[in-house]
Parts: sequence; C-alpha cells; structure tokens
Amino acid sequence: MSRYDETTLARVALTWLAEPGTRSVYALVTELGPVAALELLLDGAAPYEDLRDSVAARSRAGDARAIAAEALDRGERLGARVVVPGDDEWPGTVEELRKLRLSDARRRVDRETAPPLCFWVRGPWPLAEALDRSVAVVGARAATPYGLHVARQLGYGLADRDWTVVSGGAFGIDAAAHRGALSAGGRTVAVLACGVDRPYPVGNTALFDRIADSGLLVSEWPPAAEPLRPRFLIRNRVIAAGTKGTVLVEAAARSGATQTTRRALALNRPAMVVPGPVTSAMSVGTHEILREEPGARLVTGLAHVLEEVGRIGELAPVPRGPDRPTDVIDDDARAIVEAMPRRGTIGVDDLAARAGLAVRTVLRKMSLLEELALVVRRDDGYALVPPRRAG
Amino acid sequence: MSRYDETTLARVALTWLAEPGTRSVYALVTELGPVAALELLLDGAAPYEDLRDSVAARSRAGDARAIAAEALDRGERLGARVVVPGDDEWPGTVEELRKLRLSDARRRVDRETAPPLCFWVRGPWPLAEALDRSVAVVGARAATPYGLHVARQLGYGLADRDWTVVSGGAFGIDAAAHRGALSAGGRTVAVLACGVDRPYPVGNTALFDRIADSGLLVSEWPPAAEPLRPRFLIRNRVIAAGTKGTVLVEAAARSGATQTTRRALALNRPAMVVPGPVTSAMSVGTHEILREEPGARLVTGLAHVLEEVGRIGELAPVPRGPDRPTDVIDDDARAIVEAMPRRGTIGVDDLAARAGLAVRTVLRKMSLLEELALVVRRDDGYALVPPRRAG
Repeated sequence: MSRYDETTLARVALTWLAEPGTRSVYALVTELGPVAALELLLDGAAPYEDLRDSVAARSRAGDARAIAAEALDRGERLGARVVVPGDDEWPGTVEELRKLRLSDARRRVDRETAPPLCFWVRGPWPLAEALDRSVAVVGARAATPYGLHVARQLGYGLADRDWTVVSGGAFGIDAAAHRGALSAGGRTVAVLACGVDRPYPVGNTALFDRIADSGLLVSEWPPAAEPLRPRFLIRNRVIAAGTKGTVLVEAAARSGATQTTRRALALNRPAMVVPGPVTSAMSVGTHEILREEPGARLVTGLAHVLEEVGRIGELAPVPRGPDRPTDVIDDDARAIVEAMPRRGTIGVDDLAARAGLAVRTVLRKMSLLEELALVVRRDDGYALVPPRRAG
Repeated sequence: MSRYDETTLARVALTWLAEPGTRSVYALVTELGPVAALELLLDGAAPYEDLRDSVAARSRAGDARAIAAEALDRGERLGARVVVPGDDEWPGTVEELRKLRLSDARRRVDRETAPPLCFWVRGPWPLAEALDRSVAVVGARAATPYGLHVARQLGYGLADRDWTVVSGGAFGIDAAAHRGALSAGGRTVAVLACGVDRPYPVGNTALFDRIADSGLLVSEWPPAAEPLRPRFLIRNRVIAAGTKGTVLVEAAARSGATQTTRRALALNRPAMVVPGPVTSAMSVGTHEILREEPGARLVTGLAHVLEEVGRIGELAPVPRGPDRPTDVIDDDARAIVEAMPRRGTIGVDDLAARAGLAVRTVLRKMSLLEELALVVRRDDGYALVPPRRAG
C-alpha cells in the first residue's frame, strides 16, 4: 500500500472513518495535516467524544489504512482517480464551505458542512476546469412533464453556451438536466452520494455511462460506497459550493430538493428558482423558497440564469489569469462574443439583433475581435474561435 | 336642473370636462370647491394652458352643466346613484391617490392619478362598506384555463371569507374572479371604464346583471360614457386604491394588466402576484413583476392572500371604531373566528384543526366568543353570528 501517496491515502481513510463534512475532522486535517490527523484518530485521541466513538465503531469493521489502499486499488482498476487539495484539478471553490454556517442547523447534515477531504473522479475532464464555468440544475425526483421540460431546456441552453451542467444524477429533474447538456454536445457533471463505480440509481446506468464518457462522475465516497440516505444531503453542499450558481426547477413542500438552494444562499452564490403552476404539488417547494428567502431569485429561463451567474462568470472578466483576451475588451465587444453561436457562423445583422446592439457598433468591434483571435471571418459570416483548453 | 345638489352637479360636469385623475382639476376642486372650480374652468380661466384648451374643446360639444344634469336624470331613471366626498358611502381610501407619485410616469395616465371627483354606482350595497374588506383580483383578458381556474378559486375563497372581490369586469381573469365570488354567494364589485348603464364588454352582460343585483357596478364616468382605451388605465388606479390589496393572476409581457399591481405597489398596498408555468406567455408579465419589484409578493392561493391583506384587515384590528368586539379579543380567539365557516356550523375538533390550535384552547375561547355574540352554539356545533351591517 506504500505505492500511494501517504497524504492521499490518509484523506481516503479519514473519509471512511467519518462521513465527509465532519467539522472536527476537517479542523484536525487543517491543523495537523491528513497523516497526523489520521494517526491521532486511530490512536483514539480525537478531541471530541462523539468522534472518538464513531472512529472506534468504524475501526472495529476494519483497518482504515488497509481499506483506503483497497479503495485506491479498486479505483485504479476502474479508471477512477482521487483528487486532493494541492492537485491541479482540485476545485478551490469548495473550500468556501469552511465559511458555511446555516442559521437553522438543527440536523447533523446542516451542521457538518466542512469542505471535502478528497474527490473520486471518473471522466475525461480536469475537475477544476469542468467546474470553473458551471451551473447546478437540481430538483425533484418525482418531477412533472413541465419540470422535466424546463430542466432539459436549461441543461441544453447552458451546455450550448459552454457552461458545465452539474446535478446529482437522480431521476427526474437531475437526469433531465444532464440529458439536456448531453444533447447539446456539452459537458455535464454528476456529483454522486455513492461510489463512482456504482452510480445510483441503477435505472440511470445508461445516462451515467454517457456522462463518464464525455463529462464527469464525482463523489466524496470511495468506490463501492453505498448511497445511504443522509449522504444525498451531505453531497448537496458540494453541488452548491462547486458551481457558480444553483437553479431549482421543481420541489415538493419542505423537500430535500430545496436544500441545495439553501446551501447556495448561505454561500452567497446565485440561488435561482423556477416557478410553476400554483396548482402543482411539485412547485410548492419552489414557491416556498421564493416567498421565504429574499436572496432567492425567480428565473424563467436561460437568459435569467446567465444574467445571474454572468455576474461572476459570463459577463465579468473570467478569473483565469490576466492574459485572457476577453479581459481587455469592452462591454459591447463582450456582448458580441456572448451572442455568437457556439457552433457555426452568423451574419452581422443577426448578431446585432442577438447582442442587442446597432449593426454599426457590431461592425466596428469585429475587427478588434478578429485581431484578438476571438472570432474568425468566414464566407457566410463570423464564427467563434474555440478557447484553448488548459488541460 | 336645480333639483340636483349644486356641488354634485359640478363634480359630474368637471368629470365630463376633463378625464378623471387630472391633477390640476383635482387641485382646483380642493382649493376652491367644485362649484367655483367649474365656474373658473368654464370662464376659460384655468391656470394651465392644456387644461384651458381641453375645456374649450369639450365646451364646444355642449354645455357642461346641462350635460351633467342630463346624466343625473339618466342615472336616476336606471337606478344609478352618484356618490361624492362627504357622502356616507364615499370610500375614503381612494383619497390616498393624492399621494400617488409613479417613479416612471412618462405617459399621461401615469402622471394624472389624482383621486376621483365622484362615482356612479349601481347595486344594493353602500360603496364604502363594500370596499372596506375588499381585495382586487385582476389579470389578462386572454387568460389560460390555468389562470381562469386560479382566479375563480381566489374569487370564491375570498367571498367565502366575507371579502369583497373587486375587478374590472373584463373577459378572462376579471370575469373569472367575479364569477368565483358570485358562486360563493358573496359580494363582488366591477369598477368600469364606461357608464354603469352600458357595462363593457357586452359579452359579459349576464355577468354584469348578476353583479348589479347582488354587488356593485361602479364608474367614475357618467351613464352612456364610452369605454375609450385610456380609460381602462385611468380606472385601474381606483381598483388599486379602493381595495386592501391587489392580486395579479396572469399577464402577458409588459401588459396593461400589470399596471394595477404597480399602482398598488406605489400606494404601499399589498401587491400580490400568482406565478405560473414559465412556458406560458400569460405568466411572463407576472414573473416580470416578481423579478423587478421587490415589494411584489408571490402568492399561491387564498391563505397567502389573507396573510397579506390580513395585516390591515383580517388579523389586525379592523379600523372601524374602538367598540368592535374583535378588537378586544386575543390572537387565539381571532384565529378561531377567522377559521369559522361563513355559513353553517362546525364542530370543535374541525375548528381546532382549521385554526391550527389545540382543542382545549378552542374550548376555552368559545365561551368568550359566545359572550361577545361573535359565535353561537347550535345542536351540531358552532356557527358564526353575521356582523351587523352599518348601512
């Protein structure tokens, strides 16, 4: 088992000893590093009684280090990698969970919302890059045809605008959002509450296979981990913290589907909610949030979602370093770039209409955009030059 | 023509000379009284050029006093009465239009929002009393089955709780709200943009007949006045100002149906909006208001509406003088009264469930409520004692 990096192995072992999100474990890791923190726990010297008890209980089931090594072996066999802080692809935004304090945290899952210790990842994209321009689309499993339609449209539209669609892989809204993104030929990430080798629910297996091929399956739990009930709620904090904003499409009254939205609100991320017919039980939860949370934003479609996440991603300079060409262009030019179709060409008249600018303004800006190699002139109009990928 | 009160005749004549809501006319009436204000205008001595011009133009079509007398004769023949400030049934709340200043008042109808000079009324109820506990339910003419269903349910529920349902008598949402109230055996008021003798649209004639029998037809314009286009917008300020709150059920993008809601917001009255499917063109306007107006409140049904208007009518002491029994009872007792069915009897268990109180609390309060003659005990339960009418 020495062929694995010691700290990675320690992080995996710690996640097995205590559920992800446990504040006391995260605090020990921050203070001592993962290796020393693991030693302390295995020595029965955890500073909190309940942590000592749970570590003791888990340890009776097996040796944490051996089980972690086994998980790493298993992950390697099935092409799942472990991503830990310090890795290039570690998504720094999830560290903001450190600051998360939920005002009404009576349940364990609402108190234990510390950052993840590691991620298991399956799929061809670097995790941090996939999440850099990402929006979560989540909602009820027992969705209505209306909700499924809206989620699929949003998934499609976001992916078509080069946003990653993040969801939880569940039946209903989650699956519709993933499918919409896939049908746009875009990227989608399923954040799971179980091992990435056995994504739940089994009924979505074909969907998970497609996601693993072109997007990412992500989990805090090691391969073979079961989707225990509380894990869905533990997982939701990652969906909220890993994305630029969360859209809730349908939710029953007081349902778990609203929880991700409340996490996003607490993290000060755009928390967007799609309303629905007041006669629909699946919109009761969404309307509740809109009534109760002044920070929640009613959105009716892609344009509203882009407006919200655009504050930090779409319209504002993208935080990828100072030498990105779009950082130096003005609002009009940026509006033109945003209005360009992701695929194919567009004429100047159509482009002006989409950008909401005068044709002469568009013409004036195109040469600058050509110079910056952001657009290219073709026989039948202008086309976008795809951004070079970092990874 | 001397058989009519001189000031009433002057008010009617002034409404004929300049459209209701004209600020300069209202200011003259406030300063000089209606009789002297009319004389001033007819002498061509109005202090504003555009007012002088419009009075001159109207005067070429006839003598304002003679036309007013004719309108009063006509009104008398068809059973329509004129209500003016100082009358017992004058609804004082419309005077709050004095304070109305719309932030974005570029159009005439958004600037000229002064209080009415008089009302023409047809129907068996004193106007002020009918509007005292009233909620406006308004919306699109081209409503969907969804919107019609919601409007009818709200109309029914409000009327069933002894609230007057006020609307504009139009096709679609307006008619559905009126019909809902009528089907509950309750009161409804149609505020028209034309003479009460020829309510518009003609297709709602049967509905208007039923309203005139059991509710009220109300207008600022004299009998025979035509429903000119701007008059609907002029009229909307009365719907907003005459009620305790306004519910918007469906509205197309940037439609006139949203205007009443914006008036209510500017008047600081509860402005309630029912969301709908984001796929429906008839909910675009409602979602716009919910997104743009922080003061607009999303409501999904009767309970939410009562919660909003209850602040000033349902739950708070009703401003009718200090000797109303409900003023002196506590929150629990008031909740019990509010939970009582308007008709028929109810058992203590059901009552406790509806009021959200323990059965023992309900039992403890019933003797007080009996003593205050608010409820009466019957063989099969408790019944509400209907409030005595003032008129």
